[in-house]
Amino acid sequence: MTDTAAAASRPAPDPDGAKAVSERDRAHVFHSWSAQDQISPLPIAGAAGSRFWDYQGNSYLDFASQLVFTNIGHQHPKVVAAIQQQAARLCTIAPGFANDKRAEAAELIASYAPEGLNRVFFTNAGADAIENAVRMARIHTGRPKVLTAYRSYHGNTATAISLTGDPRRWANENAGHHDGNVAHFFGPYLYRSHFYATTPEQEAERALEHLEQTIAFEGPNTVAAILLETVVGTNGILIPPPGYLAGVRALCDKYGIVYIADEVMAGFGRTGAWFAIDHWNVSPDLIAFAKGVNSGYVPLGGVIISDAIHDTFRNQVFPGGLTYSGHPLACAAAVATIEVMREERIVENAAWLGEHVLGPTLRGFAQRHPSVGEVRGIGAFWALDLVKDKATREMLVPYGAGGPAAAPMNAVLAECKKHGVWPFTHFNRLQLTPPLNMTEAEALEGLTAIDKALSVADEYAAA
Amino acid sequence: MTDTAAAASRPAPDPDGAKAVSERDRAHVFHSWSAQDQISPLPIAGAAGSRFWDYQGNSYLDFASQLVFTNIGHQHPKVVAAIQQQAARLCTIAPGFANDKRAEAAELIASYAPEGLNRVFFTNAGADAIENAVRMARIHTGRPKVLTAYRSYHGNTATAISLTGDPRRWANENAGHHDGNVAHFFGPYLYRSHFYATTPEQEAERALEHLEQTIAFEGPNTVAAILLETVVGTNGILIPPPGYLAGVRALCDKYGIVYIADEVMAGFGRTGAWFAIDHWNVSPDLIAFAKGVNSGYVPLGGVIISDAIHDTFRNQVFPGGLTYSGHPLACAAAVATIEVMREERIVENAAWLGEHVLGPTLRGFAQRHPSVGEVRGIGAFWALDLVKDKATREMLVPYGAGGPAAAPMNAVLAECKKHGVWPFTHFNRLQLTPPLNMTEAEALEGLTAIDKALSVADEYAAA
Ligand SMILES: Cc1ncc(COP(=O)(O)O)c(C=O)c1O
Ligand SMILES: Cc1ncc(COP(=O)(O)O)c(C=O)c1O
Repeated sequence: MTDTAAAASRPAPDPDGAKAVSERDRAHVFHSWSAQDQISPLPIAGAAGSRFWDYQGNSYLDFASQLVFTNIGHQHPKVVAAIQQQAARLCTIAPGFANDKRAEAAELIASYAPEGLNRVFFTNAGADAIENAVRMARIHTGRPKVLTAYRSYHGNTATAISLTGDPRRWANENAGHHDGNVAHFFGPYLYRSHFYATTPEQEAERALEHLEQTIAFEGPNTVAAILLETVVGTNGILIPPPGYLAGVRALCDKYGIVYIADEVMAGFGRTGAWFAIDHWNVSPDLIAFAKGVNSGYVPLGGVIISDAIHDTFRNQVFPGGLTYSGHPLACAAAVATIEVMREERIVENAAWLGEHVLGPTLRGFAQRHPSVGEVRGIGAFWALDLVKDKATREMLVPYGAGGPAAAPMNAVLAECKKHGVWPFTHFNRLQLTPPLNMTEAEALEGLTAIDKALSVADEYAAA
Repeated sequence: MTDTAAAASRPAPDPDGAKAVSERDRAHVFHSWSAQDQISPLPIAGAAGSRFWDYQGNSYLDFASQLVFTNIGHQHPKVVAAIQQQAARLCTIAPGFANDKRAEAAELIASYAPEGLNRVFFTNAGADAIENAVRMARIHTGRPKVLTAYRSYHGNTATAISLTGDPRRWANENAGHHDGNVAHFFGPYLYRSHFYATTPEQEAERALEHLEQTIAFEGPNTVAAILLETVVGTNGILIPPPGYLAGVRALCDKYGIVYIADEVMAGFGRTGAWFAIDHWNVSPDLIAFAKGVNSGYVPLGGVIISDAIHDTFRNQVFPGGLTYSGHPLACAAAVATIEVMREERIVENAAWLGEHVLGPTLRGFAQRHPSVGEVRGIGAFWALDLVKDKATREMLVPYGAGGPAAAPMNAVLAECKKHGVWPFTHFNRLQLTPPLNMTEAEALEGLTAIDKALSVADEYAAA
């Protein structure tokens, strides 16, 4: 939909509608990751393409793709039509049957995965994709432990939240809601190196040494899997330095460990490649996906499985399953989404946007704004690491900051929204993850607003 | 849809279509709970109302409601239309926003829950509903442990599978894929009493004594929650004897333990009441639901939350969430499903079917078939406990039987399918869980086929 068409489809302001939705929401909806009395969720009236709008006549350029999942933007007419057609044909059928759309989606997804990953186990979303990938790895190896990075997010079910390397894990561990067979290590992050490194080569080399040491001390024959977000998403758009992922693959081979790539956020075009792993020419044993696979139009996730791991379950029962595995409506949406992405060269567009629009403009901001410490990104997946001081790299707000400590970031966010742009913030970072098919004009419009908002951040930073 | 209309919409046999789907399925789809080389999933071409059909021209009366979730049958036109309309309006929006359909679904769902349960946290399905209910209980009480029954199923993520009391848990525990803060107890099951009881009153009393002893030895101040399927589903349609659930509620009150009702399978009309708990007039603190909430047309689950537990999270962050919480398309399907159930008196129909058709006919089978040890059920939720010998009650196949040991049950299942009926079997049980709005004629047609199939079971039983 063109921007004008989208604007035309927007209803007139309806404050009473907003009030009715808000009241019902506050009376009955319990929201994720929140203290329920400290939120006032904005009622959204509609969305199209790269924009969504509230009931008051305000529209927002979606620089977050919601939670980084509407990779083809909102309400793509071909995918909407495919959902409507499949709804008329067959909404659902149990996982034990064969179904045309389920099989077609699996074939399409596998066709974009590295060679030798040919089977797909469908789940409902990201967390259960991670759970099932880990289950496969544990049974395949006969070992219990999973190594995963600090600065990561893998979902909210017990194993997935234990694997998570950010503060969302803590309250769950304190409550005993966790999987004990997990150990964390530090991944590469040159700008704030855990390894006192000064070059990408050194960072990669030392991060691999650290990982091998962690394996050695955890006990190689206790380790089933290493799980990594190929590009770390929520926790900072951390792009692995050259050689790191190949090194992880080599360590996995050396010790008989399964390499699980979490591509829930990075997959399906986000980085300007079908899978982020393609940039580094590495082949994991399992790939967890969700989000972009059908832009979240219908809940869907899954695991792409190597032939070797599939072989383990040829004559041994895989002890996992779920009622909606391979849901026909969700799979039909995936088939349509992937076809649209291919036909409209949406993945290529993400790469182009990153290289020609987002990257250059954001790097320009780093020159002009004292608060912009580092710009990182690839494709339509960008972060501004905001600082109090470029020399010390002190974070604009501390790690895990909430409440008053987060005030500077809240001010930046509010300023973005005031200018009609909806980005994502996490700790001291402004993250920009627009739909992959955002137009250049929309991207520039959003970047102009973000430029203004960064002046607010600058007030907290040393000039 | 009338049966004739459904038949009319069925395409002509298409063996080439079946072959194409099967080949793709076997090449790319990894199936739940299976050894991949030992299955040949039947390709399904379509479904309507109480029937579905393959590509060969065979149709089946769906006496399983798939995996006990299509409570309103297949392709209900009003729900299909609601999905199509919502797809055109707004497929998805992030959980942090307020959304009209999300709020409407939450209000409707809460309106059917016992008094004092007013908030809904939406998930994608049953397992993540259980995970989040347990997380709430643990944080609300500050205690880690969850007590749950043997003979139960709660889902496949780490905590949910650990809570499960059937063999699907074992391979996961051996692989280290589990939550350690779980203990199991025995629930009431008079026909195979663990308590040497001979009357329902005695069974209830002794099962409660056993539960209180378990609490005492686990340590009351370590126990966050007791989790129970209100009517145990997959593991036998076990209906609690009078007084049991009220006794569980009283124990929870006595020890400050959260009572979580798993109504994923039993809820939304399955037992002839909106929630199974309604039959016993008991109010749990949390209700986990999924399946029937929208008949699985779009993946959806959730937790209904008591005001007291909601209060805990008014000013304390709830440390759980998921990308698709409160998915608008899924919530729109829930609103339409619940409205259809109300308008068409579908819950009442389930109660009527149980009382006037399924119950009497199945009890008649018990008189005539030496293999039918016990008939249990309520609403559209029935099981035949098959035996080698009515006197000893020896199970027709042993607990957990697979492979050759399961041959008698496989023979019964094959005979049902031959006669155009698709039931569910589990160990030694034939379970009959048709759509709640199945017609009397369809039910009788199915029961006639099942009657024939039971003759196969009789061959293995002492006359
Ligand atoms: C990298 C990554 N893995 C897993 C998940 C969990 O996905 P879901 O929220 O669908 O369970 C997320 C969600 O943001 C994610 O970003
Ligand atoms: C009682 C019960 N709880 C939980 C679940 C798990 O639901 P899901 O398969 O949607 O994760 C099931 C599934 O059959 C169930 O029957």
